[in-house]
Amino acid sequence: MASTKKVIVVAGIGNGGGTGAAVARLFSKEGYAVALIARGRDSLSTLEKELNEAPHGEAAAFPLSSYSAEAVQAAWASIKERFSRPSYEIRAAVWNTGHGAFKKFLDVTPEDIEQVAQVGTIAAFAFSREAILTFKENSLENEIGKRGALIFTGATASLRGNVFTSAFAAGKFATRALSQSLNKEFGKENIHVAHVIIDGVIRTDRTHAKGLEWEQNEDLRLNAESIANSYLYLVKQDRSAWTWELDCT
Amino acid sequence: MASTKKVIVVAGIGNGGGTGAAVARLFSKEGYAVALIARGRDSLSTLEKELNEAPHGEAAAFPLSSYSAEAVQAAWASIKERFSRPSYEIRAAVWNTGHGAFKKFLDVTPEDIEQVAQVGTIAAFAFSREAILTFKENSLENEIGKRGALIFTGATASLRGNVFTSAFAAGKFATRALSQSLNKEFGKENIHVAHVIIDGVIRTDRTHAKGLEWEQNEDLRLNAESIANSYLYLVKQDRSAWTWELDCT
Amino acid sequence: MASTKKVIVVAGIGNGGGTGAAVARLFSKEGYAVALIARGRDSLSTLEKELNEAPHGEAAAFPLSSYSAEAVQAAWASIKERFSRPSYEIRAAVWNTGHGAFKKFLDVTPEDIEQVAQVGTIAAFAFSREAILTFKENSLENEIGKRGALIFTGATASLRGNVFTSAFAAGKFATRALSQSLNKEFGKENIHVAHVIIDGVIRTDRTHAKGLEWEQNEDLRLNAESIANSYLYLVKQDRSAWTWELDCT
Amino acid sequence: MASTKKVIVVAGIGNGGGTGAAVARLFSKEGYAVALIARGRDSLSTLEKELNEAPHGEAAAFPLSSYSAEAVQAAWASIKERFSRPSYEIRAAVWNTGHGAFKKFLDVTPEDIEQVAQVGTIAAFAFSREAILTFKENSLENEIGKRGALIFTGATASLRGNVFTSAFAAGKFATRALSQSLNKEFGKENIHVAHVIIDGVIRTDRTHAKGLEWEQNEDLRLNAESIANSYLYLVKQDRSAWTWELDCT
Repeated sequence: MASTKKVIVVAGIGNGGGTGAAVARLFSKEGYAVALIARGRDSLSTLEKELNEAPHGEAAAFPLSSYSAEAVQAAWASIKERFSRPSYEIRAAVWNTGHGAFKKFLDVTPEDIEQVAQVGTIAAFAFSREAILTFKENSLENEIGKRGALIFTGATASLRGNVFTSAFAAGKFATRALSQSLNKEFGKENIHVAHVIIDGVIRTDRTHAKGLEWEQNEDLRLNAESIANSYLYLVKQDRSAWTWELDCT
Repeated sequence: MASTKKVIVVAGIGNGGGTGAAVARLFSKEGYAVALIARGRDSLSTLEKELNEAPHGEAAAFPLSSYSAEAVQAAWASIKERFSRPSYEIRAAVWNTGHGAFKKFLDVTPEDIEQVAQVGTIAAFAFSREAILTFKENSLENEIGKRGALIFTGATASLRGNVFTSAFAAGKFATRALSQSLNKEFGKENIHVAHVIIDGVIRTDRTHAKGLEWEQNEDLRLNAESIANSYLYLVKQDRSAWTWELDCT
Repeated sequence: MASTKKVIVVAGIGNGGGTGAAVARLFSKEGYAVALIARGRDSLSTLEKELNEAPHGEAAAFPLSSYSAEAVQAAWASIKERFSRPSYEIRAAVWNTGHGAFKKFLDVTPEDIEQVAQVGTIAAFAFSREAILTFKENSLENEIGKRGALIFTGATASLRGNVFTSAFAAGKFATRALSQSLNKEFGKENIHVAHVIIDGVIRTDRTHAKGLEWEQNEDLRLNAESIANSYLYLVKQDRSAWTWELDCT
Repeated sequence: MASTKKVIVVAGIGNGGGTGAAVARLFSKEGYAVALIARGRDSLSTLEKELNEAPHGEAAAFPLSSYSAEAVQAAWASIKERFSRPSYEIRAAVWNTGHGAFKKFLDVTPEDIEQVAQVGTIAAFAFSREAILTFKENSLENEIGKRGALIFTGATASLRGNVFTSAFAAGKFATRALSQSLNKEFGKENIHVAHVIIDGVIRTDRTHAKGLEWEQNEDLRLNAESIANSYLYLVKQDRSAWTWELDCT
């Protein structure tokens, strides 16, 4: 076990300034090898390079051509080849994507909706399936007695639909349902599934560019680094008191 | 106005023994013309025939080849042609479908997930868009002051994911999010959007055939006719006190 | 049965312009005798007089000296004496009170908290107990198959605590918990317990006088008469599809 | 600052085998002085002795004669005298009590309800007031930027009422409302208020003695030590990503 390196798979990196990237950085510092999944090759490469240049850092990028089930499955196959046993063991996976079409309902396009269904349901299920199947092969981790942890990033829109969020919330609700079902089904197999609700908005270049109304909210207490700490807390959580949902307001 | 007949569009008819069919029957008795939408032509035709044979009954079936946005849009175009102004006015629409794959997570197939995304998100959005656009052309209805009512059928799985319901709940959560966003956005335009949570299971031939575990539940107090009454209540509800969600336990 | 008059007990009348009074008026028109419970004798007497002067109207006031369990119990004893079998049968009860101290937390007084505990818990339990015991003696009502209906008035503060609502929400949450437990326990005995969430504020003289911030909300679509209709709907609801919660947004 | 010892106030100790005692032990190990509040002097004294005998341990017991606001206030006054500045600084407070009358509704006694109102509302408000006022005098803690943390112990009954839990849930709902309101009001003053939902049952002598049905649940994954870790996590949480609610299932 001493010679086996733990691996975390992080899907959804954005521009490198949000939750996904912060989680990748934190777990890298904690000694995890990091597998990065995202659509855009550019931000993936930048983060991959940054992580590899840090002392003891080890990361690899797995760009997705789309959020189809096949593409997600293929990415996991590549990850498991790159980080194969017995040198590595995939112990954590984070699903950090969502399609955020903040628009009036009648301005939501068919492409927006297609994306919401693709990311929030199809890809989220495919990602979960691969994570669960991978974790099932793991032994129980010492002390915490868990085979692996699968964490989903939620939002206020995971709990309440609102004006401008019909599309965004639909995807977020679907993913939350998935996380709750998985928590109930796989807890007894010592696989920990959790859902983190981030209330408020993390200011990233992307939200800034969009000039969204909710960006004006002055109560922006959240930042990505602190949120990443809560993911680490969940991954390390002893199986005897597992959190399903963490509501950060 | 006296010579204008009100129309209800009901999507999701099942085998004719469930909520959708009961809603169609009740509104037909109340003097509404009924537009039926569903996948299977057979059950549609049977119910269409039954409704047309009743005194003053008037119904037409609009079978869907798939739950694609285009198919849903095309069905609405046909409905608006068949029930055109000034003889008719579409005043209510019911979205009564959901893909119910009650399976262990690892037994859920890619086809199941595809269906969940298609029905729970893509088709639900397309249906809602057509309903809202149609209602916006309506005048305020006398006394109740509303342009139209769009009602979604939910389930316990709209509120909580559970073992066996990862797929079913994902679709139901997504549709609930949509209904809540629409309620908030279109209430001020006097379009009433509601969500009815049916707790327990309505025994239909389909559930019977599947022999599902939850069918054993002895506390089966719900029946489709009574549920249909709550839809009628919602449609008639005065705009000054609109229900978004009705949780029937 | 034909000669038995149905009775509704309504607790919480306010100044006569809110939900409680509207419910009393509507059920009176529907042929119910009305028992009014409240703290203040004045508004009780005014409403009692108004209801008795209407054609076929029949009402009686039962002022409370306090919201102690004993006072509530004594009021019910008087009601059951005044409206005794076989001439009368108490078929519905509405709990429409709440202590609304909209204040910053540090401005909430011990008296406010005492009131919240008294009204939201102690009196609500006492009222429920008397209603349930009374309903248990009833036969099943024809057609709807129910022994009685107990309805609680909730608010947005029943679902979410917020700045200024620590005290108000604590009472409202407690009452909602009670209603949900009762719904689950007594549904099988054909006693219908429901909870109506009124989102937004009903403008009454009292809220006006207080000049509360939330009164500025322009989206004031609710009015007491329309809300009363939903109570009537719940009371008439067939036992095969009982609503626990009705969320009016 | 180096010479100032941090203090945690823990209310609700039970028999010494549950969450409250485990939290006291963990924070004691972490270098906190511990103020213990509870009704029964015996279990308080036992735990106080145990903590004081540990290396560097420092604890004091403050027994309550009742859960009245005055008694709670008096306990805090004694605590602030015993652990006074500049040697000590009270940085955390845990409200870990609840009155658990698991009974059929009609078996719930007036004393049970009185207790539920007293503990779940009156005492919880008094305790919160003292904690908030105390924290307001603190400086921002280095690194995490917070003045203090107030944590409430919740249960599944904080989210849903059920058969047998009308009384227990009423108190738990009320306390959850309080915690949510406080979180929203005092977050901007850098006081962290959180609510931990413990799903499942911690086996203690007391639950054992009662032979409650829910004790049979085999999925008893929770234990008090692990739960205590989540309290420590919350207290240490950086103000930039504060959790309001932690749902442990």
